[in-house]
Amino acid sequence: MERVAIIGASMTQFGQRDSWIRELLAEAGQACLDDAGVEGSEVDHLYVSNMASGEFEGQTGIANAVAHDLNAIPAYTARIDQTSSSGGAGVYSAWQSVASGASDLTMLVGGEKMTHRTTAEATDVIASLTHPAEYKHGVTLPSFAGLTARRYLHVHDAPRESLAKVAVKNHKNGVDNPHAQFQKEVDLETVMESPIIADPLRLYDFCPITDGSAALMLCPESVAKEYTDDYVTIAGIGGATDTHVVHERADPTVMGGVVDSGEDAYEMAGLGPDDIDMAELHDMFTILEFLQSEGLGFFEQGEGWKAVEEGVTDRDGELPINTSGGLKSKGHPLGASGVAQIYEVYQQLMGTAGPRQVEADTGLACNVGGFGNCVITTILEASQ
Amino acid sequence: MERVAIIGASMTQFGQRDSWIRELLAEAGQACLDDAGVEGSEVDHLYVSNMASGEFEGQTGIANAVAHDLNAIPAYTARIDQTSSSGGAGVYSAWQSVASGASDLTMLVGGEKMTHRTTAEATDVIASLTHPAEYKHGVTLPSFAGLTARRYLHVHDAPRESLAKVAVKNHKNGVDNPHAQFQKEVDLETVMESPIIADPLRLYDFCPITDGSAALMLCPESVAKEYTDDYVTIAGIGGATDTHVVHERADPTVMGGVVDSGEDAYEMAGLGPDDIDMAELHDMFTILEFLQSEGLGFFEQGEGWKAVEEGVTDRDGELPINTSGGLKSKGHPLGASGVAQIYEVYQQLMGTAGPRQVEADTGLACNVGGFGNCVITTILEASQ
Repeated sequence: MERVAIIGASMTQFGQRDSWIRELLAEAGQACLDDAGVEGSEVDHLYVSNMASGEFEGQTGIANAVAHDLNAIPAYTARIDQTSSSGGAGVYSAWQSVASGASDLTMLVGGEKMTHRTTAEATDVIASLTHPAEYKHGVTLPSFAGLTARRYLHVHDAPRESLAKVAVKNHKNGVDNPHAQFQKEVDLETVMESPIIADPLRLYDFCPITDGSAALMLCPESVAKEYTDDYVTIAGIGGATDTHVVHERADPTVMGGVVDSGEDAYEMAGLGPDDIDMAELHDMFTILEFLQSEGLGFFEQGEGWKAVEEGVTDRDGELPINTSGGLKSKGHPLGASGVAQIYEVYQQLMGTAGPRQVEADTGLACNVGGFGNCVITTILEASQ
Repeated sequence: MERVAIIGASMTQFGQRDSWIRELLAEAGQACLDDAGVEGSEVDHLYVSNMASGEFEGQTGIANAVAHDLNAIPAYTARIDQTSSSGGAGVYSAWQSVASGASDLTMLVGGEKMTHRTTAEATDVIASLTHPAEYKHGVTLPSFAGLTARRYLHVHDAPRESLAKVAVKNHKNGVDNPHAQFQKEVDLETVMESPIIADPLRLYDFCPITDGSAALMLCPESVAKEYTDDYVTIAGIGGATDTHVVHERADPTVMGGVVDSGEDAYEMAGLGPDDIDMAELHDMFTILEFLQSEGLGFFEQGEGWKAVEEGVTDRDGELPINTSGGLKSKGHPLGASGVAQIYEVYQQLMGTAGPRQVEADTGLACNVGGFGNCVITTILEASQ
């Protein structure tokens, strides 16, 4: 079967934005059209990945709004929601639209507008994705993260500092990302002494609340060649769920959705963990970077923390992780994050990542919905 | 390319239900598994079509909840939203998942829980899909319908009674649908004397607010044969947008999304309007049945009302429309409606529609999002 290619990508400035969701989506969408050299009217399918524009802003129908704003009518549109992995789910939908033959040119625009709500309000919107059995006990995603981190440190005899070093590394990478919400380094002491949020996790173990949007242009590889010689292909993609009720998992430090979606993506690509040159992982909480790097087979179970301690995942390490700064410093506008992960891998494989550039022909993105309730893993390869 | 087949279908009782969205989706999902003879654990992809569970009920992440409740983990899941055409968009996503080779067995469950909210609250959630330029003037979907109906009657010199006859016909059909919200006839006088909602449209020109869910099981035709000899195939499917701002349309009585999605579906199926034996149209408002029956080429522009007057679209007419009772009597749980349309066509083509049965080998469903902002048209054929 012919591969699906990516021929353009964009992301807006992430952070606290004055624009509403429609404006953010249109901004990234127009930049993506420009990057790909495509007119809105050429687009066959237009997907919007977004979790909760209605809940955050009282605006629904945003996929139709974007078709209007980008002059893409009569392109078919739909909104794809898979909670915090809406972006990855959008990538999977866009891939399916091309691979099925339904569309020869599909644009995906992911975005979320969140910062106009208080932290408590935003946290509650996000917590509404949890199972009622846990939600009614007041469990939020940060509290799941705290419990999981405590378990991980205990079982694997890992130092608390190893978690903090994820934050230090990703903030350092974010300094060179002009779109990142935080473009400043933090030192180990600052992270370790920041306020406790969900013990043992502290403020700097968490990604911020963010506004932003990102977009991709997908088409069959044969169509890509009509536009450009330089493009990226989707070599493998997979998605998988784990239990909705987190406490039903046999081992909360193993993310079943990561393992299963990774296996599917590797199998489709005909590749394994050793073939991956760089990866963007979903570091909504520092602990998640360990769990994903282990679930995807980069490191043995319980060894992910050592890789960070030893610098293996630094930008100049053997397997750079989150060269973009990750969700931690780049920010996490829910529906945009999975798209922005692919944006970063695309830039790295195209050789256009500027001061963040690493050597890479093959990259992976792992986007986590909820607390691992559903995960989408995508593997990209450079065309040349 | 191999066709995508439907091997099972279900719908819950539509109406005022005591169940919450998760329970409604699980009810239809389990019934669909049973109908298809499939275990939840066999499902590869599981899509949920739903517009606004977060806005209506404060519950998000419902695709992951359904995977849990149907024992379908680790099936990949996502929620598909295309406002009032979320069901049709879900059908398109499910079709793409199979046609792309990503899934060999895809379940789609559509649903909405609305009746616990007041009419004003529900209407406002739905109105949030309109363009802000119109929303801020207080325009809701019923008011668009009133304006459009007035224009249609004027331009085509159609009697007000012709609209009422759509309601009379669809209520009559609904009597024989055990899942319908209203299983009772209404006479012309009742419709014509019901309270004015958006002049010239009256109460009985509008579908009700409804709770309910419906589900489908899709797979490649080669896989279908492993389960059953009797199935239905998706011969054609297409989706298209029209302007988000309704007042920007050159002629508000022509639904561009209906025309464009219909053309795509006909082309893919290699069929035309004359080949269709029965159709389920999106009669959220009576006027919409005229506009769709014309936009899909069943009747000339401005002639749709005559077909209803002459009984052409009656159950024993030449082209039965809305044998299920339509949204008008069956009810309109937003995310379920497009799925329930396919459920009805499936029953008719399988010959299992009971007292509603018509003679049909080929059927069409047209699902309208917003006020024609996006439309999905699907054409089904019996396998034998």
